[in-house]
Amino acid sequence: MSVMRLDDHQLAVRVTHRAAGIPAPENFKLVESAIPECPAGGVLVRVMLCAVDPAMRGWLSAEANYMTVPDGAVMRAHGVGEIIASNSSKWQVGEQVFGWLGWQRFAAIRESDLLWRIDTKIAPAESWLSIFGLNGLTAWVGFLHLARPLAGQTVLVTTAAGGVGSVVGQLAKAHGLRAIGIAGGREKIRRAVAQFGYDKAIDYHAADTPLSPQIAAACPSGIDIFFDNTAGHLADSVFPHLNVGARIIQCGTAAISSWLPPPTGPRRERDMLVKRLNWQGLVAFDHASLFPKALQELQDLHKAGKLIAESDILDGLENAPGSIQRLYRGENQGRLSIRP
Amino acid sequence: MSVMRLDDHQLAVRVTHRAAGIPAPENFKLVESAIPECPAGGVLVRVMLCAVDPAMRGWLSAEANYMTVPDGAVMRAHGVGEIIASNSSKWQVGEQVFGWLGWQRFAAIRESDLLWRIDTKIAPAESWLSIFGLNGLTAWVGFLHLARPLAGQTVLVTTAAGGVGSVVGQLAKAHGLRAIGIAGGREKIRRAVAQFGYDKAIDYHAADTPLSPQIAAACPSGIDIFFDNTAGHLADSVFPHLNVGARIIQCGTAAISSWLPPPTGPRRERDMLVKRLNWQGLVAFDHASLFPKALQELQDLHKAGKLIAESDILDGLENAPGSIQRLYRGENQGRLSIRP
Repeated sequence: MSVMRLDDHQLAVRVTHRAAGIPAPENFKLVESAIPECPAGGVLVRVMLCAVDPAMRGWLSAEANYMTVPDGAVMRAHGVGEIIASNSSKWQVGEQVFGWLGWQRFAAIRESDLLWRIDTKIAPAESWLSIFGLNGLTAWVGFLHLARPLAGQTVLVTTAAGGVGSVVGQLAKAHGLRAIGIAGGREKIRRAVAQFGYDKAIDYHAADTPLSPQIAAACPSGIDIFFDNTAGHLADSVFPHLNVGARIIQCGTAAISSWLPPPTGPRRERDMLVKRLNWQGLVAFDHASLFPKALQELQDLHKAGKLIAESDILDGLENAPGSIQRLYRGENQGRLSIRP
Repeated sequence: MSVMRLDDHQLAVRVTHRAAGIPAPENFKLVESAIPECPAGGVLVRVMLCAVDPAMRGWLSAEANYMTVPDGAVMRAHGVGEIIASNSSKWQVGEQVFGWLGWQRFAAIRESDLLWRIDTKIAPAESWLSIFGLNGLTAWVGFLHLARPLAGQTVLVTTAAGGVGSVVGQLAKAHGLRAIGIAGGREKIRRAVAQFGYDKAIDYHAADTPLSPQIAAACPSGIDIFFDNTAGHLADSVFPHLNVGARIIQCGTAAISSWLPPPTGPRRERDMLVKRLNWQGLVAFDHASLFPKALQELQDLHKAGKLIAESDILDGLENAPGSIQRLYRGENQGRLSIRP
């Protein structure tokens, strides 16, 4: 049993109602209660950190999505923590874990909500939410497995300094590709190049130069892989520079604030046909069988000094209800999480 | 040397200038001359039939395309014919061939313009432009190789009664899939079901019922493969019915009459991501190494009575300049070609 804080009681963030667009503070409420019991067959986890992810927007949407969090439920979130009670034969008190812990201090959950063990002696808790968490796995699956990169090719990544983009840049560098990043703001493009392996980064906030000629200049041999986290007008600037046979990995749609009604844009059918593009939607969990292999390579790269994590931790669950907006405003520097 | 017609002299259709949209008669001129000499190292072919293909629109476009026919040149076209003179060690007089013969009576061409031998004793000349030509190979590569169909899945095909679509339907039936076709007009949907293997076909000309509910009714288990020859509003009606993990093969864009300026439509990034779609542009020649295998299976299916060809042959090269418009108006019943 770990030492607990003096103010120990349960604190959880619950969903109040569906969000139109990006979830805001009014879509949540903070609920205080006693520390829950350890459920039959399950575990009780003290949460060290819980994640804030772009995908959360979809989980609160009234539209169909691959995952949803119903009104009234504790907000679904990945987290890392330590088991403080167990009625499970698979999980022991004292083990550190990554899983669906939610936005709360104590997670009374089923065995199946735990995904894998972590070890804060190898890397601090926040690394297990970033480079060794779903961001790292998403980057690995999307870039190395689905996009089939070859040394010497060019990859362009949107939200290059974000949780996934920062890993793609470092994987690209480690595998001998030219990596070009697009990010918002001088600090992010500085970090994309200085820390995340990018050969060059373009600031889409700098409105003085149109994006397309900057992309052309940064990609003299065109783009072989487009790892897209934004969609929208940023993606529109990238498409004309894709090479024949280029692969597009759709990992996020951060630049579109609402899909109700569906926004319009340039039709892509002719690009798809004439350039024989391959466009693939990416949800890392579809490839969970690859996670052990991916985690091993990510840890090897980390040990070799070729993969770093950067974290932005908000202290206190009272910051959670506004944290998704914060993420979409791009205010975070590194993987955003909450210490509950 | 074959027996020649009494009026034998060269007649060729040359491109006069770029076409905005679908090439019209004014983009071509008919030029008469003496029968050309057999070129050094090449062959002289008497053309039996020359093809009219949707892709020709792109070849005359001022926009970038994977292939272009310059102003002044004989219109590029696949054709079947017989070698009447040869300066090549690879090709003999009397052999029947498929290749880039062009819209002309006599093709004085290089060895490399010939693609493979044909045999009109196995099937008539027109079959070598359809089920055993690029239509059949495109259907085979796109459907069986790229879309990875499984028995029991549902495939939806636009221009289901067209040159490629009519083969996809028959391949789908032979491989145990449910095939749904979209085509324009009562006669085409009748033939899609009666002759081309479709379980059901939807007439997009019948304006009384919106397309989307008809697609939903025809595809009770959703759509696993979308083989798209049209793009545009027809494709927009299909996207909501795609299953998670569906594959989209972009084989044509027949519903879009001009890409200058680029037309707009619903943004696809969210569909791509949430449904983890895979969208692939198809140009059969990228997969030429598979052609022998494909041709063997197509011939086996034909022998087994599971693959039929339908042809619409225009008599005389004077019909060639208007034939692309005719194709896009959907007036042909079966694979359109010209007997020069």
